[in-house]
Amino acid sequence: MNNRVAVVMGSDSDFEVMKAAIVRLKSFGIPFEVRVISAHRTPAEAERFSKTAEENGFGVIIAAAGKAAHLAGVIAANTVLPVIGVPVKSSMMGGLDSLLSTVQMPNGVPVATVAVNGADNAAILAAQILAAADHGIRKKLYDLKAEIAREVSRKDELIKTEVESI
Amino acid sequence: MNNRVAVVMGSDSDFEVMKAAIVRLKSFGIPFEVRVISAHRTPAEAERFSKTAEENGFGVIIAAAGKAAHLAGVIAANTVLPVIGVPVKSSMMGGLDSLLSTVQMPNGVPVATVAVNGADNAAILAAQILAAADHGIRKKLYDLKAEIAREVSRKDELIKTEVESI
Amino acid sequence: MNNRVAVVMGSDSDFEVMKAAIVRLKSFGIPFEVRVISAHRTPAEAERFSKTAEENGFGVIIAAAGKAAHLAGVIAANTVLPVIGVPVKSSMMGGLDSLLSTVQMPNGVPVATVAVNGADNAAILAAQILAAADHGIRKKLYDLKAEIAREVSRKDELIKTEVESI
Amino acid sequence: MNNRVAVVMGSDSDFEVMKAAIVRLKSFGIPFEVRVISAHRTPAEAERFSKTAEENGFGVIIAAAGKAAHLAGVIAANTVLPVIGVPVKSSMMGGLDSLLSTVQMPNGVPVATVAVNGADNAAILAAQILAAADHGIRKKLYDLKAEIAREVSRKDELIKTEVESI
Amino acid sequence: MNNRVAVVMGSDSDFEVMKAAIVRLKSFGIPFEVRVISAHRTPAEAERFSKTAEENGFGVIIAAAGKAAHLAGVIAANTVLPVIGVPVKSSMMGGLDSLLSTVQMPNGVPVATVAVNGADNAAILAAQILAAADHGIRKKLYDLKAEIAREVSRKDELIKTEVESI
Amino acid sequence: MNNRVAVVMGSDSDFEVMKAAIVRLKSFGIPFEVRVISAHRTPAEAERFSKTAEENGFGVIIAAAGKAAHLAGVIAANTVLPVIGVPVKSSMMGGLDSLLSTVQMPNGVPVATVAVNGADNAAILAAQILAAADHGIRKKLYDLKAEIAREVSRKDELIKTEVESI
Amino acid sequence: MNNRVAVVMGSDSDFEVMKAAIVRLKSFGIPFEVRVISAHRTPAEAERFSKTAEENGFGVIIAAAGKAAHLAGVIAANTVLPVIGVPVKSSMMGGLDSLLSTVQMPNGVPVATVAVNGADNAAILAAQILAAADHGIRKKLYDLKAEIAREVSRKDELIKTEVESI
Amino acid sequence: MNNRVAVVMGSDSDFEVMKAAIVRLKSFGIPFEVRVISAHRTPAEAERFSKTAEENGFGVIIAAAGKAAHLAGVIAANTVLPVIGVPVKSSMMGGLDSLLSTVQMPNGVPVATVAVNGADNAAILAAQILAAADHGIRKKLYDLKAEIAREVSRKDELIKTEVESI
Repeated sequence: MNNRVAVVMGSDSDFEVMKAAIVRLKSFGIPFEVRVISAHRTPAEAERFSKTAEENGFGVIIAAAGKAAHLAGVIAANTVLPVIGVPVKSSMMGGLDSLLSTVQMPNGVPVATVAVNGADNAAILAAQILAAADHGIRKKLYDLKAEIAREVSRKDELIKTEVESI
Repeated sequence: MNNRVAVVMGSDSDFEVMKAAIVRLKSFGIPFEVRVISAHRTPAEAERFSKTAEENGFGVIIAAAGKAAHLAGVIAANTVLPVIGVPVKSSMMGGLDSLLSTVQMPNGVPVATVAVNGADNAAILAAQILAAADHGIRKKLYDLKAEIAREVSRKDELIKTEVESI
Repeated sequence: MNNRVAVVMGSDSDFEVMKAAIVRLKSFGIPFEVRVISAHRTPAEAERFSKTAEENGFGVIIAAAGKAAHLAGVIAANTVLPVIGVPVKSSMMGGLDSLLSTVQMPNGVPVATVAVNGADNAAILAAQILAAADHGIRKKLYDLKAEIAREVSRKDELIKTEVESI
Repeated sequence: MNNRVAVVMGSDSDFEVMKAAIVRLKSFGIPFEVRVISAHRTPAEAERFSKTAEENGFGVIIAAAGKAAHLAGVIAANTVLPVIGVPVKSSMMGGLDSLLSTVQMPNGVPVATVAVNGADNAAILAAQILAAADHGIRKKLYDLKAEIAREVSRKDELIKTEVESI
Repeated sequence: MNNRVAVVMGSDSDFEVMKAAIVRLKSFGIPFEVRVISAHRTPAEAERFSKTAEENGFGVIIAAAGKAAHLAGVIAANTVLPVIGVPVKSSMMGGLDSLLSTVQMPNGVPVATVAVNGADNAAILAAQILAAADHGIRKKLYDLKAEIAREVSRKDELIKTEVESI
Repeated sequence: MNNRVAVVMGSDSDFEVMKAAIVRLKSFGIPFEVRVISAHRTPAEAERFSKTAEENGFGVIIAAAGKAAHLAGVIAANTVLPVIGVPVKSSMMGGLDSLLSTVQMPNGVPVATVAVNGADNAAILAAQILAAADHGIRKKLYDLKAEIAREVSRKDELIKTEVESI
Repeated sequence: MNNRVAVVMGSDSDFEVMKAAIVRLKSFGIPFEVRVISAHRTPAEAERFSKTAEENGFGVIIAAAGKAAHLAGVIAANTVLPVIGVPVKSSMMGGLDSLLSTVQMPNGVPVATVAVNGADNAAILAAQILAAADHGIRKKLYDLKAEIAREVSRKDELIKTEVESI
Repeated sequence: MNNRVAVVMGSDSDFEVMKAAIVRLKSFGIPFEVRVISAHRTPAEAERFSKTAEENGFGVIIAAAGKAAHLAGVIAANTVLPVIGVPVKSSMMGGLDSLLSTVQMPNGVPVATVAVNGADNAAILAAQILAAADHGIRKKLYDLKAEIAREVSRKDELIKTEVESI
């Protein structure tokens, strides 16, 4: 079963945002490949990539783009793999253009959209999808859930000291 | 491997919208269960349901809600299964409140959000996730892709006649 | 020089809106072809159409789509012909999603966007572009300008009577 | 009668914003407890906390969260105490996502929402609620009203000097 | 202790929306008074009403208004009683103007804002505030919580039949 | 001193909205003239009208337009008379486009903007401006203020009966 | 005839924005008074000020406020003088809350709203209103119009040099 | 045939944004002229310029303006040449006011709108329009398309190194 994740971004300027996804995939031990492909500037490569993604061993595709963010949609048009869209924050209303362009897909061609700049969550969602057939990843997801809960609890402890210092 | 889909809605008034998801899942032969569970009105059931979803054989959860649409997020907080959120159109700015409440999740707890009222796409996305381990579903997804392409082509033919009648 | 206009719509449900463009092109005597092509449902045809548009004698392409309206952008990615985008009104905030998805294109790939549901203006803009090399069309544009001015003047006359009836 | 106020925040990054609430409660002499509890990362604690809030002597709960701000809603789902929601400003349209996620609650489960980042007002509202049974707090509210009026009057005096310096 | 609720609306056209609040208060056995007072058209009455609300036995004030919805704010300026604001839906972006005008209050003068057209929730919030000193109301709030949970559960049962009929 | 009011609308389709302004001006006995002039379709007339408005005895100009509502701005560019802009509701976000196009004028060229579809208020504002030099109008404005206050008070009386019927 | 202008701001933090209005009024030689009055924090003074504004010789009132910007509306409720509202930019969507709270006034009580932070234009609009009875001001308005045109023309000249340096 | 492009901006503060258009036109060898003309501050020049643009050899006009961005519309009202509008980013919601004021033109008078601050794309669109009659430009457009594709491919190569450094 395909277990690699593709992390595609429409511009290398999205890299800072998408680092969080890469770090998360690494920490989960999920094999991945990072690409810069533009729906509008390299449409042929976008098509070629998405049409061959399944045979190339990808199980999930994460696509990040801003403004008229068509990348995730263009990829979803050419594959039946689940495509996760990350709307990258633009200067227009905090990324509302990116969000609407990514999420408002027509019937038949879904894009699984996460929050604006939600790179980390895109990676976690990819892991949740792959976890169906991979007990190791599922365990790591449970561990992550426990860890972030512990982190909040630790902050809950620390806040008392901070409050006293007011 | 878990292969059932849960279709949860926050109110029975969401049923009209969610019918499209049910019809699609049926047509794909994917086993599913439909529930009315409210994050705010039956929080205990929301927690119980999401905590036991995996052991109850669910592989994907579709959660639909409107306005301050917390349902998908509350479920995602209690499971590592992929949760697909359907923002149901409210009268407030065409569902912008539902969309933002569903998609803008904090790091660590993703919700795979589809378009406002995107019930059909939620079901297709669920199928794409399950297809990783089910060649039958994958084939149906390819068939669907071909069918919707043919449908557009048929419309492309018909439009010529309509144009002539102007 | 290419003098045909392509009127492409992402769905036949956009036809009601786009009729105004067709009527206007007819009245200008501009040859045109109407197509239903979807960026997401018939991506191969979208690519084939846009790549061959120039050699097929098209001088301008009008592309209409709603929601995550990628059609105009996908066409513009594959041609250097001017592409006019018509954001079709969706139920989401009066078409703001369609507008932002159409107009917020990345550097290098412009889409000439008109108003939400601005089909008539798309046709007039196409005529303005073709008029550079076609004195007949230019004359019709001047005639149209005069005619709409006269129409407003006529309304200006009529309003007096209406005011008296209050 | 319960007279303690709980100040709950979804993340310790909300602390800077919520300090104003703590300072105000202190100045009113209202006993309070500050917690970091996340609706999505520590859902069990969110439930436990809100279910026991009444028996633990809380009379009002202030809940602050950003983005898909579910915290106040999740707490309100599990208690009949008044819950005051503080939408914390996110980078998305100045906190519109936080505001809509907090305020647009379904029938049956209200959240008393204050302005984006309105921590001080949340504390004052809590005091107004507790003042019903506590003449001391009521007096302090009248004093505050007088004080902020005097402050505006003082500014009204000072502005004359500033105007002359233009 | 003051136990009456004032339900004030800026225009009698808000009455249809506010009926739900009245019905709820009646069902809770909470004494109330309904008024039409406009911040802009009867400012003197708005001031007189709010300044004397406490001495007239009111414990909570619910204020409903639309568009530039100043009513709740104007009342809150003249009392230290908790003021609940109900933004009434206007034709402008589904009531965003009413919501922002009601909720974005300056420091020192909070308005406890509920959802657009959230009349029922305004009444429930008023009951939650009064319940601090009234065990009867608190019991009714618990009953309501149980009842709306049962209602959702009943819908959860019924949905199975509806699904089968698809 | 100039005491006539011009009521200009960009399209005769704005007439239904603008009737309220005409009725109000009539009731105040203010002489007025109604025109249909388009900033975009009859720009020469827009210029001629606004440049000669002062010498033609106009003291205030009311300009109503929708969508990219340039009419008030174009008139203000050509006169120093006060220009009142009425943003006419479009189908785009309840008239937000009309509002922003009317109100967001650059430094040096103000437009006195009233609410979306605020035709009545535009007429009252015109009367307030003319009232500076006309005691008769000022008296009518005081009468109107008293009358609308009485109307609200009458509604305040009637609401009691309506409440009892619930 | 009243010829003084009141410049009222809801908070002294609005002073930086409102300086431009003061500078403009000074340059026009229009007598003015600057006040800090809050609709919510000094409601009694807001009422007293607006009720006596006419007898105190004011001909126009400029009112600036941010967020739930009620100041202009509260003043307009208590006077028949023209009230010019300046929505002060908040951090919420660039001042959309201030704009909507200022402009969306109910029938009967207009506020002449200028652009967000449009202090200079508020002063010019005040001058346009006073100019009806003051030829000196009218002349200064014509001079200003000529001056800003010359300034643009000068920039038009200078741009050529800048272009050459690219 | 007219082959010059006019680049008009409403204020010299738009120059920083519009530089990209000028650089692009230069690189294409397209003759152009840069102007500062304001729809509101130099309306006579705006009219004169647009009425004579065709006879002065212009084939396309690019017009950039912010806030209530009327410039492109005012020019389009006076010419049948294609007018390209560049909404310049304002501080209001990232330029939504500029965008809506530019794009939402009434029937009969189109403006070909590009993205907020989309100066480069405005120049490319102008080139696409002129390319109909100029094989040299068309070739440069194909070259540009190839070049931006190569640039993305180069970034696609480089990203691998960056990923390894995480």
